Amino acid sequence: MQTRVYAAPSAGAPLAPSTIDRRAVGPRDVQLEILFSGICHSDIHQARGEWGKAAFPMVPGHEIVGRVTAIGSEVTKFAIGDLGGVGCLVDSCRSCTHCGEDHEQFCERGAAPTYNGTEMDRATPTYGGYAQHVVVTEHFVLKVPTNLELSGVAPLLCAGVTTYSPLRQYGCKAGMRVGVVGLGGLGHMAVKLAAAMGAEVTMLSTSPSKQADAARLGATEFGLTSDAATFKRLGGRFDLLIDTVSAKHDYNAYLRLLRPFGTMVCVGAPPEPSPMAAFSLIGGNKRIAGSAIGGIRETQEVLDFCGERGIVADVEVIAANQINLAYERTIKGDVRYRFSIDARTFAS
Amino acid sequence: MQTRVYAAPSAGAPLAPSTIDRRAVGPRDVQLEILFSGICHSDIHQARGEWGKAAFPMVPGHEIVGRVTAIGSEVTKFAIGDLGGVGCLVDSCRSCTHCGEDHEQFCERGAAPTYNGTEMDRATPTYGGYAQHVVVTEHFVLKVPTNLELSGVAPLLCAGVTTYSPLRQYGCKAGMRVGVVGLGGLGHMAVKLAAAMGAEVTMLSTSPSKQADAARLGATEFGLTSDAATFKRLGGRFDLLIDTVSAKHDYNAYLRLLRPFGTMVCVGAPPEPSPMAAFSLIGGNKRIAGSAIGGIRETQEVLDFCGERGIVADVEVIAANQINLAYERTIKGDVRYRFSIDARTFAS
Repeated sequence: MQTRVYAAPSAGAPLAPSTIDRRAVGPRDVQLEILFSGICHSDIHQARGEWGKAAFPMVPGHEIVGRVTAIGSEVTKFAIGDLGGVGCLVDSCRSCTHCGEDHEQFCERGAAPTYNGTEMDRATPTYGGYAQHVVVTEHFVLKVPTNLELSGVAPLLCAGVTTYSPLRQYGCKAGMRVGVVGLGGLGHMAVKLAAAMGAEVTMLSTSPSKQADAARLGATEFGLTSDAATFKRLGGRFDLLIDTVSAKHDYNAYLRLLRPFGTMVCVGAPPEPSPMAAFSLIGGNKRIAGSAIGGIRETQEVLDFCGERGIVADVEVIAANQINLAYERTIKGDVRYRFSIDARTFAS
Repeated sequence: MQTRVYAAPSAGAPLAPSTIDRRAVGPRDVQLEILFSGICHSDIHQARGEWGKAAFPMVPGHEIVGRVTAIGSEVTKFAIGDLGGVGCLVDSCRSCTHCGEDHEQFCERGAAPTYNGTEMDRATPTYGGYAQHVVVTEHFVLKVPTNLELSGVAPLLCAGVTTYSPLRQYGCKAGMRVGVVGLGGLGHMAVKLAAAMGAEVTMLSTSPSKQADAARLGATEFGLTSDAATFKRLGGRFDLLIDTVSAKHDYNAYLRLLRPFGTMVCVGAPPEPSPMAAFSLIGGNKRIAGSAIGGIRETQEVLDFCGERGIVADVEVIAANQINLAYERTIKGDVRYRFSIDARTFAS
């Protein structure tokens, strides 16, 4: 079927309305009429060709929530009319060790990304969620709680699971002291999720203007990281730091904020390497880790977790024709905290 | 009592024979007549004032094995004539969280190092194992297996626990693929211990001449790290890397050798920071960690483990008057793999 989309025709060119073909619904496929599509900062990097490999035309979008409008004959997980979600992946080999352990993002044959990649045939390009419809194989379509505001559900599919996963990997629980570095799309979800898990959350930000918001989101403390005294005051305090900052910063300074055996997890990726001293890790058996989105099981977990607790992302809903402006504002950090595109506006 | 020692009179000056006072044996003290004392690379850094804080005269040595020659009235763990060992610490507060969890090396009040520091009174200097005798509070004296060659036991007190601890922290076990980076004092213990835990061990070294030795120590594979092709061949192979190298090297290259969820643990500390890319960690949920010696419980564990399996360090036994030469040879990597001073030679 044909579906209307917003696509980048070439690297860095503004996104413009266009039309693409979605495949016919196969026996295990689910077709969604998209309701909301979040704008992730990685959409911008890829649409502008800043991350190397980029195929055009590109239809970004991997934070998708929609309504099931067709299912294949073998589909058991969904019925027409159900809500469904799609995140960063639309397929994987489903037979390697990592797929078997529900970490499809590390599929040994390379998972199929929702856009700017290909299906597992390595030939058919994938197009993302800035669209009216999408067709995805059942395993990669998530069940979406029915009690949540859907515009704020879309970002859970990437920003949500990206922060939920490291919190779970490193045992976030009641009483744990968690610091969240940076208050943006990822950071605001990290605060909400860590607080919902019972942790004592501190927001670490360069912007004094974000203090009130951090408190509203669930942080009980605030550390102004542009002030060197903050690093003294909070030294040795945290069990876990979730670092969402994608601008260059000094890992050694943040590692000093950890208790012995503490972990700092990077989910933001600065473009340039940053100097790391082994002594920053050795003194206190500390760790710096990375975490990449999450597998399908974990993505379902964060949706269920948020459904049970009434958690959604804070979003500003926009129409499709505001995408290019939203990109500019996202780059400036001028959004609290995610843009969510009303997908009905792709039709016009 | 007076005891003969080798001491550095000032930063960088050659070590020379001297005499110091050891305290009288208190109710909880154990006095050891030292039998062997290992030379750790950190002895050299500290005797030369290369690690900042350095107090002179300095008597280095924190790999000590000896015979109990006196005990205090309240000592229960040792009898006169027993073997005893002393590692990097001689006291701690024993009441903080970390001491309570058997991680005395992270004592919140600062543990008392075996030399180049003070007792917990913050006044009495500590002097290390290049000596005929030492007096240490019972809790910090280790039980030493009686079936091992004692010259090779001494290095277990630092090199042994420093490599044993991260192997245990990160779950080394049968079938795990462990890479050991660098074959020196730490590296040769890491190979022996990981192999004894059942892991499949690969030695990663810049020296082709070390291949035969690596195999003898228990490594089943060898990767020549001066050859870029090695990093391709072994990409994504390891669950765990124990990095013992204290010269600057590219962490990003080594992180590419890890499987998803793999960990690289630094026990060697290059003097300069090294550039670290967050992407090296994020792709594959990888970790780079540090590990600092081990607490008293863990030090006892490695001694017991080695006793049960007949493991000792490979040492070259020297006399006290060869210490300065041994320092030069250690710096050049010209020792397989640790110098062990015959402590009887301090008397002459």
